[in-house]
Amino acid sequence: MSSNKISSVENLIDEFRKLPGIGPKSAKRIVYYLLKQSREDIEDFSKALTDMKDKVKFCQECFNISEDEKCPICNDSGRNNQIICIVEKISDVSVIESSGQFTGLYHVLGGLLSPIENIGPEEIRIPKLIERIKILGITEVVLALNPTVEGDSTATYLNKVLKQFDLKITKLASGLPVGGDIEYADQVTIGRALSGRTEI
Amino acid sequence: MSSNKISSVENLIDEFRKLPGIGPKSAKRIVYYLLKQSREDIEDFSKALTDMKDKVKFCQECFNISEDEKCPICNDSGRNNQIICIVEKISDVSVIESSGQFTGLYHVLGGLLSPIENIGPEEIRIPKLIERIKILGITEVVLALNPTVEGDSTATYLNKVLKQFDLKITKLASGLPVGGDIEYADQVTIGRALSGRTEI
Repeated sequence: MSSNKISSVENLIDEFRKLPGIGPKSAKRIVYYLLKQSREDIEDFSKALTDMKDKVKFCQECFNISEDEKCPICNDSGRNNQIICIVEKISDVSVIESSGQFTGLYHVLGGLLSPIENIGPEEIRIPKLIERIKILGITEVVLALNPTVEGDSTATYLNKVLKQFDLKITKLASGLPVGGDIEYADQVTIGRALSGRTEI
Repeated sequence: MSSNKISSVENLIDEFRKLPGIGPKSAKRIVYYLLKQSREDIEDFSKALTDMKDKVKFCQECFNISEDEKCPICNDSGRNNQIICIVEKISDVSVIESSGQFTGLYHVLGGLLSPIENIGPEEIRIPKLIERIKILGITEVVLALNPTVEGDSTATYLNKVLKQFDLKITKLASGLPVGGDIEYADQVTIGRALSGRTEI
């Protein structure tokens, strides 16, 4: 008995299943939804995919995504170019931007130091960071790295390397997330929240 | 201060947000994932989308999806063409197929009767169903419609219309889902499971 496999449909389901967070049921549901959409809508979607690949490159300065040589942030003369925020990946830039609390520049490492995976300072664009610090005359570096083993050791390394420059090195505060519940916080978070307590 | 909006990236995020079950965070995560993929992978994805639209049409017999005039199921001489299973939508066909328990044909209504939305028998392909029943000499019709108000009233209508033919009309059994918990089942499900109880 033949099954009900339509190859172009199965093929598209497979493409969706490759995406993060999409399982076989969601992929099927999405494809059946797309089957009902107009040819125009599908072409728009298809074009948006290739367009992104055609247009997006990496900023020559900070390695953020950009459609030009320099990203909108590096190109913006209204930003404070004395302070630089170091992040692991591109998506961290938009998270920090969405807080509206940072007006300086960024430097996207594109990874974290990991001797096991053979990722050293060169791989995470530290030479370019040092070059930018010198040229821009940076006065403060904000380390916005995840509070994990790799994040912490990368922060320690950067702290050591950047000490030679006359600048302030800061990092994001550790503590309870807003809306979080003390009952469910882990010991380390509670410990950091206590040691970093502020007067009210 | 400019924000970090790259139009081709935002555009693709918007396309993903239109899909069922994908919220703003998932859409972002998917697009950042795609940014790291090769040009070839993105082109494959883009092509799979347009390919599906180009190739998939509806079976002239049962309205299932197909790349030919007739779907693989209607084309399969090994199937029992005396029994027909009536479903609401295309995705229901693959769910029933995946059970491996049905070897007959299908008829996809493409909707359910709804006087409020002006959906009558013509809109849900009932004339074609009657034509098929006559031509194929169907002996059993299985109603596989959702146990909802619209599903039940469509089933009642079909039952009335199909009485004129010499055939058996059956419907899917109602009861506890396999792996379900009696504690969390609703009253109606429990009621139907009781009234449809079988000897062991």
